[in-house]
Formats: sequence, structure tokens, C-alpha cells
Amino acid sequence: MTSYPETGLQIRSLIKPEGVLEISLVAQPTSAPAANEVIVRIEASPINPSDLGLLFGGADMTAATFSGTPDAPVVTAPIAPAVMKAMAGRVGQSLPVGNEGAGTVIAAGDTPAAQALLGKIVAITGGSMYAQYRAVAAAQCLVLPEGTTAAEGASCFVNPLTALGMVGTMKLEGHTALVHTAAASNLGQMLVRLCNRDGIPLVNIVRRPEQVELLRSMGAEYVCDSSSPTFTDDLADALEATGATLAFDATGGGRLAGQILAAMEVAAVRRMAEYSRYGSTVHKQVYIYGGLDRRPTEFVRAFGMAWGIGGWLLTPFIQKIGAEAAQRLRERVAAEIKTTFASSYTREVSLAEALTAGAIEVYGKQATGEKFLITPAKK
Amino acid sequence: MTSYPETGLQIRSLIKPEGVLEISLVAQPTSAPAANEVIVRIEASPINPSDLGLLFGGADMTAATFSGTPDAPVVTAPIAPAVMKAMAGRVGQSLPVGNEGAGTVIAAGDTPAAQALLGKIVAITGGSMYAQYRAVAAAQCLVLPEGTTAAEGASCFVNPLTALGMVGTMKLEGHTALVHTAAASNLGQMLVRLCNRDGIPLVNIVRRPEQVELLRSMGAEYVCDSSSPTFTDDLADALEATGATLAFDATGGGRLAGQILAAMEVAAVRRMAEYSRYGSTVHKQVYIYGGLDRRPTEFVRAFGMAWGIGGWLLTPFIQKIGAEAAQRLRERVAAEIKTTFASSYTREVSLAEALTAGAIEVYGKQATGEKFLITPAKK
Repeated sequence: MTSYPETGLQIRSLIKPEGVLEISLVAQPTSAPAANEVIVRIEASPINPSDLGLLFGGADMTAATFSGTPDAPVVTAPIAPAVMKAMAGRVGQSLPVGNEGAGTVIAAGDTPAAQALLGKIVAITGGSMYAQYRAVAAAQCLVLPEGTTAAEGASCFVNPLTALGMVGTMKLEGHTALVHTAAASNLGQMLVRLCNRDGIPLVNIVRRPEQVELLRSMGAEYVCDSSSPTFTDDLADALEATGATLAFDATGGGRLAGQILAAMEVAAVRRMAEYSRYGSTVHKQVYIYGGLDRRPTEFVRAFGMAWGIGGWLLTPFIQKIGAEAAQRLRERVAAEIKTTFASSYTREVSLAEALTAGAIEVYGKQATGEKFLITPAKK
Repeated sequence: MTSYPETGLQIRSLIKPEGVLEISLVAQPTSAPAANEVIVRIEASPINPSDLGLLFGGADMTAATFSGTPDAPVVTAPIAPAVMKAMAGRVGQSLPVGNEGAGTVIAAGDTPAAQALLGKIVAITGGSMYAQYRAVAAAQCLVLPEGTTAAEGASCFVNPLTALGMVGTMKLEGHTALVHTAAASNLGQMLVRLCNRDGIPLVNIVRRPEQVELLRSMGAEYVCDSSSPTFTDDLADALEATGATLAFDATGGGRLAGQILAAMEVAAVRRMAEYSRYGSTVHKQVYIYGGLDRRPTEFVRAFGMAWGIGGWLLTPFIQKIGAEAAQRLRERVAAEIKTTFASSYTREVSLAEALTAGAIEVYGKQATGEKFLITPAKK
């Protein structure tokens, strides 16, 4: 076993009973690895939209105050009473944050599997990644191919497995093409590359004309701009051309999910030979996997009776396909981490820099095109 | 083969290109039955909510005009341009109406199966039931038990199979209890009797205090009144007590479906040991099978990620379970048609009376507690 520091910093998110969020850096003792464990020095960990719920705890970050020192910053923000109700389960617990990351194995337990990882650069997942060190089971480490940096491998799980999960769900549920919203996101671009590579027709929905250009330049064939006056017709045409009857929606709120179902119905009815008062019998499905649009979801039921809207999460999908299939997906991600599953970041920040006003203002917005990478090993 | 009249009256619904609905009585030639067919003199046929879409074609019935003669009435009503778009597939076609009915077999084709039905009272389904005579395959006839009248057997399919389909869907999808809205309806009362008989916990949602009393008097244990100020809490308590995670919603519009999911989540979280930012992992499902509330559907996504809302129709359920299982359901309906699956009607009308202003005003409202039976054999 090699040596490792006695403590490491990590970001903690705490909700106090009086309705206040406090985010701070805490020095956490580094415990010795168990026999089958390794200790990873986290060198890169992305800020994904799915991290922000836990990090911010529903607080009003526009009202945040910043105190402490540059090395030990403290962020404080108020939480509305209605939100506090939903947070009841975590009040008073100082929670670590960060879904995934990558770094170097600097210590290992006694088992051969753990020892074999010493010095390797690995990608890991499971929370507590906004930290300098993380103990993890050797079996959970995804060894990155020779020549891959931690920064390149930091996002091996959330986005790549979500993209693969969408394609897998499509196949499991008998669909043959996909629709994706907020399609210019990092995940959206990844899905464009994955579908191109695997020959899966993909209808991309974006919100701005320049995003249409971006995706087309990547080889996306169908890109519909929801800000265009011809959006509804464009979407129905793309759905008719691709036969897509399954959509993954990152926005969640507003009328977009219902518009997609309605356009799928228009496309399906165009293919029907005769009138049915129940509409088409083709099952049309939208899975909501994000909440970029915080408004209530609203839809006019004008798409027949064969439709569904539901929540979608990666974890149940992974459980459904089983451990072996999941491992094959992870190995594919590692093999294609510089191509199909490459991520790009607009800014790298240390743990302390991630808790500054200037950083939170940008990554807290979840704006398409802005993605931060935390580099806990750098001061 | 016995004799039968050369023509019979039937109700027809026609949408004219200029945006006008015309409902009238048409004298239809009675063709000779094919070898495997019988001719049924329809003696009773219910007006179900599911018949009204085809009958009224989306027309504004509050603006209907009534002409013709008492024996040959004609109802005319305007259709809004937006609705006409959805009706494009049926413009210019004079369509027969009526999903189900019962009556006496008065003629039969040559096959032994057809001949065996002569003189029997049978229940049938498949459209064109608002008519004096209906040719139908012998295999499609459900022979009613000795001593059952056509009026008693008129509603053997739509409501009974829907109630059985709800229970069957519950079992197929791994739930153990049910929620039902508009629960004081004929179908709702049937579901109360069926669930009582089969020992299935049922949460009934009604809209008025007197409906609570009605259902309680029938032995319903859980009845929640959505007009009560304590509705949300009452519902969560009932869901916690029953463990119901599947709802069938006849209203469709407004916020009720979302309220049910939210209350299911409250009940599920009460049973959870620790906080999860993704909410409970229990799958919560609402199937919308009607549209009593014509507003858009709206919901606040505050029920975790394991949820679904979708359309539900009887026909795909029947196809899914297969012909043998469906036949067993039909036989159960016939055996329990005077008990579990009994229907009651507030008024009997002839074909011509069904097309009067006074009748349409009442049954067109789809008000709970008003159900009409058409008796085409009576003048």
C-alpha cells in the first residue's frame, strides 16, 4: 500500500432547520482502504445538471451570500418554506456531492484486484466526488485506456450511460428512432454522435437557430428549432420521416412534451388508411428525465389513446438490463471516451473556486453550452 | 331460417363538409345472415360516454336544432372549424352508432352454431347497435343466462370489461390496489362491487359529498371527496392504507391526475427509511381512460422520477390478454350480470326519442347518475 494524505477537502451541502442552505469545504479524514478498495485522488469531476439538486437543495441561489475565506469559502442561501417541506428528509445532514469523476489510484487494499489498480487512471461514480480523495471498491473502477487523462475520463457515467440508456430503452420498448430535447447540450451532442455511429434516426429539438447550425455541423440530419414559427410542422415532418415514437425530454415543464406527442400523432395518422375516433394505435411515449423548464407540465390530450408520459432515470434502466449488460456499456464508454463519448468543458475550477459567486452564477443556470469541470487536486 | 323484416331503422351520424353534424334515423335493408351469422332484434342498448364522441362528432350540441317528424327526427348542430380538422377522416360518411346491446336472435344462418342461437337472448358488441336489427357472427354472441332480460344484459361489454380490464391491468403491471375517479358513475359502482367481491383495495374519488354516502352505502371503504378542503390529506391517507400505486382517471383534464401522483408519492415517502433526492422508487401510474374534464391536463412534477401518465383503452388490453382469457372474462360477466355487473338506467327511450331535445340535453351532459337505455324494438 502506498501512502496518502490523512485528510482531504470535500464540498458539503447542509440544509439547516431554519430554512438555510450552507455549502462549504470540509476536511475529511482519509480512512485506510478496505482489502478490496482503492483510494483515488480525484483529479477531475464534472458539474452535471443532476448534481445541482443535491448541491443547492432547492435554495434561491440568486439570493446567495458568500463568506469565509478564499481557501474555505461558505455559501449561504435561503430556502422557501414550500421547498423545505420536500427537503425534510435531508435537514441537518451534511451531505457530500458529485456524481462522477476520474483520477489516479494512490493507495490500494490487499486483494490482487485492488493492487492491480495502483497508479492507474480510473473513472468512478457513486457520489462524494467533489473531494480530493475517494475510497471506492476496486470492482467499481473503470480503467481508462492508456493515454487518457483524468479530465478526458471525468464524465464516463452520467452522460454516456444516459445516452446509451436512451438507445437501450428505445430497443427494449420496441421503438426504432428517437426524439431528444435540449439537444445542443453536452449530452445532446453525445447522443448525435452515438446515433450517427449506430445508425439510429434521431430528431433533435433545440431552442435557438445557432443550435441548429451547431448540430447540423456535427452531422445531425433532423434538427427542429422550437423558436421557429414552423416548429410544429417541421417536427411532424421529421417524425414522419424517421418514424420516431419515443422522446426523451430534458425540459419537463411547459407544453413541449404534449407538442411532441401531438406531432407524433399527426405523423402516425398520416400513415393510417381509415378514420378511427380513438386516433392512431401506435404507442407514443415521452420520458421526462430533467427539469430545465420549472413550470408545470401541461398538455392538450389530442393524440389518441395510445400514449404515455413518464419519468425516466438511468439507475432503474441499469438495474433492468442487469450487471453484465451494464458492464458492456461501461467498457464501450471507456473505449470510445475520446470520440463518441467525449465531453468538453468551458471552465476548470478548484473545489474552492466552485463555491464563488462568479462560478455559481454561470453553472447554476444550466445554460446549454456552459459546462464546468472541478479539479480537486489543484489548489 | 326464420323470417325477419326487410328493413330496420338505425341511428346515423353524418358530418357534412360545411361543418354541420346531422343525426337522423335511416331505414336500412336487413340482409340475409351468412352461414355463420345470426340476426338479432336489438331490444336494449345503453348510451355510454364512449358512444357520444361518434354520435355528436364534436359538435356544439347546445346550439342543436331539431327538425323532421316525431317518427323521423333530424338533429343538426354546428362543428367548430378546429374540431372539423380532427374529424376530417369521417366527413361525408353516414356512420352507425352504438357500441353494445342485447336482444333476441330472430334469424340464423345454416351452421349448427348459428342455428343453436335461434330464440336466445344474447348480448353483442361491435357498433351499429342503435338499430332495430343487427347481423352478427354467432361466435360473437354472449348467450345470457336463463331468466335474464335484454335490458339486464344490454351493458355486458363496455363497463363490465372495463372494470375487469382495470383489475387485470393492475395484476399485469404488479400493483395490488386501485384508485378510481368519477367513482360514483355506473362503471364506478360496478368497480366497487367487483373489488369488494375480489378483495381488492379500492380508493374511490368523487366530486360531491352525497356521492361519498352512495358509495359507502354500497360497502366502499375508501371514498375521497375532491370538493373537500381535506381532500389531499384524505387521499394520501387512503393511499398509504391501501398501498395503491395505480389509478384510472375518467376526467383526464385539469390537475387531478397530478394530484393523485403527488399523493401516491407522499404515501410512498412515508414508508421510506431515508432521504433520496429522486423521491421514492415506487412506480406510480395514472391511466386516463376518459375526458369528462375537457381542460388541458396539468401537473407539477413533485412525485419523484418513478411515475407515468398514459392513455388506456379496453381494446389493447383485451388483445394483450388473448382470446381465451377474454372469453373467460365475458363468461364471468354473463354469470354475474344481475349482481357484480348489473347496470341501472334512469330512462328508456326509443330510437326516435333518443334524438329529441329533451333526451339529448340530459344524456349529452354525461352527468353521473344519469344513464339512458335505448329500446329500438319499441315504438
